[in-house]
Amino acid sequence: MENIKNIILNAGEVLKKQYNGLKTCETKEKFDLVTQSDYLIEKILINEIKLIYPDYSIYSEEVGSISNKPDKCWIIDPIDGTANFVFGVPYFCISVCLENQGEITEAYVYNPVSEEFFYSTKDEGKSFLDGKEINVSQNNEIGDCLAVFGFSANYNNIQRYYKDWSCIFENAKKGMPLLSPALNICNVARGRTDFFIDLSSNMEGHSAAALILKNAGGKVYNYDFTEWDYKSKGIIVTNGKVCLEQYKDKYSS
Amino acid sequence: MENIKNIILNAGEVLKKQYNGLKTCETKEKFDLVTQSDYLIEKILINEIKLIYPDYSIYSEEVGSISNKPDKCWIIDPIDGTANFVFGVPYFCISVCLENQGEITEAYVYNPVSEEFFYSTKDEGKSFLDGKEINVSQNNEIGDCLAVFGFSANYNNIQRYYKDWSCIFENAKKGMPLLSPALNICNVARGRTDFFIDLSSNMEGHSAAALILKNAGGKVYNYDFTEWDYKSKGIIVTNGKVCLEQYKDKYSS
Repeated sequence: MENIKNIILNAGEVLKKQYNGLKTCETKEKFDLVTQSDYLIEKILINEIKLIYPDYSIYSEEVGSISNKPDKCWIIDPIDGTANFVFGVPYFCISVCLENQGEITEAYVYNPVSEEFFYSTKDEGKSFLDGKEINVSQNNEIGDCLAVFGFSANYNNIQRYYKDWSCIFENAKKGMPLLSPALNICNVARGRTDFFIDLSSNMEGHSAAALILKNAGGKVYNYDFTEWDYKSKGIIVTNGKVCLEQYKDKYSS
Repeated sequence: MENIKNIILNAGEVLKKQYNGLKTCETKEKFDLVTQSDYLIEKILINEIKLIYPDYSIYSEEVGSISNKPDKCWIIDPIDGTANFVFGVPYFCISVCLENQGEITEAYVYNPVSEEFFYSTKDEGKSFLDGKEINVSQNNEIGDCLAVFGFSANYNNIQRYYKDWSCIFENAKKGMPLLSPALNICNVARGRTDFFIDLSSNMEGHSAAALILKNAGGKVYNYDFTEWDYKSKGIIVTNGKVCLEQYKDKYSS
């Protein structure tokens, strides 16, 4: 674990510099810079992982699959929450997990600006933030819950969330759309928020955090409340106390 | 300036600890804790300011006016972006400015997690982030712009923004709803984003950042495009290059 942790911390240091260094520039350059940052962090992660784990496969958001041994694969999201990164919001992270024969067995999520490092392993069955064990909240009433839904900088999606989930969000204590599926899931895992719904998260963005959430006592579903498959698109996570399934028939997606 | 800066940095250190220390707890306690954090930071700021500036008035979000000399007043927002603070998003700040005979003459905005310190003074006519001068972006076409609108964790507001400003947001390169008026304005000032529209920001939240924005080359208006008055509710800020006024007649608010 220390090896992969150090790889992520080192890449995080570069990512933080990239974030601070984003300057006034034309939008095109801005987006090129993001692409550069995405590729740069991905490259650093891949090179280091190859060095330390020469027999493992790698799957990364930008380059796809790099295959050696098919049964052990590092799944990488170099920047989860890219729009936050560009807009100057320090709520983005590096997400890395190990897929072992079709199962996620190690998970790491790191926000390099706030320096929050989440991790969990299947063997240990616990989750940690900066070395301390974390657990989900105990809220079981919707009216007490802080609800998060995935934001995708897309108005159609906001409208769709509102249509699909109005029954839930109107009853929650407070609801917010937030970008960065990985950090949103980790915030449920640590008990800061109570549930999170995302219709478009993907394997690279949500797989690591989903293990962290499960080992912190939470529940994970696919977006349609079927059994969790990290390869599917979208996700629903809860603290395992509040029951969203009762709304299953009400939502219209 | 060093005096007030040190006061804010010290309060920021406490605020960062409060943020990191938020634990799994019942929602009510969570909100109590926020209120506690708000009051705690406010109290620290007020006590320190009274000590160093005994002849000045103070206006703060939670306690209102503390009057001594009416012509010089420190305006304080102890936590701008409270919901982010609670939800685990390190995008909140302390905002402090000096009102001198009805005019804002000094402005300070500090994010204690990312440790970004913005300031500006009327005399100097420039704005700074971590000691380096900042300037707005050069984008003058809506299609090149990163647009931010104020998020208030309120669905009716999202619907209203969409109704009022769809003509703008549909044309912008990317649009996002973000909480923390002060940081949203500072991000326009530093050229990370191009404009920001908020229908419900208040004096404590937007006054400091508005001076920072103006002295970085940006433009500030009231929410209805009338001449800027920091005491009014809501705000529109731009990089001074993109013309939103052309949409003035189209918006339906």
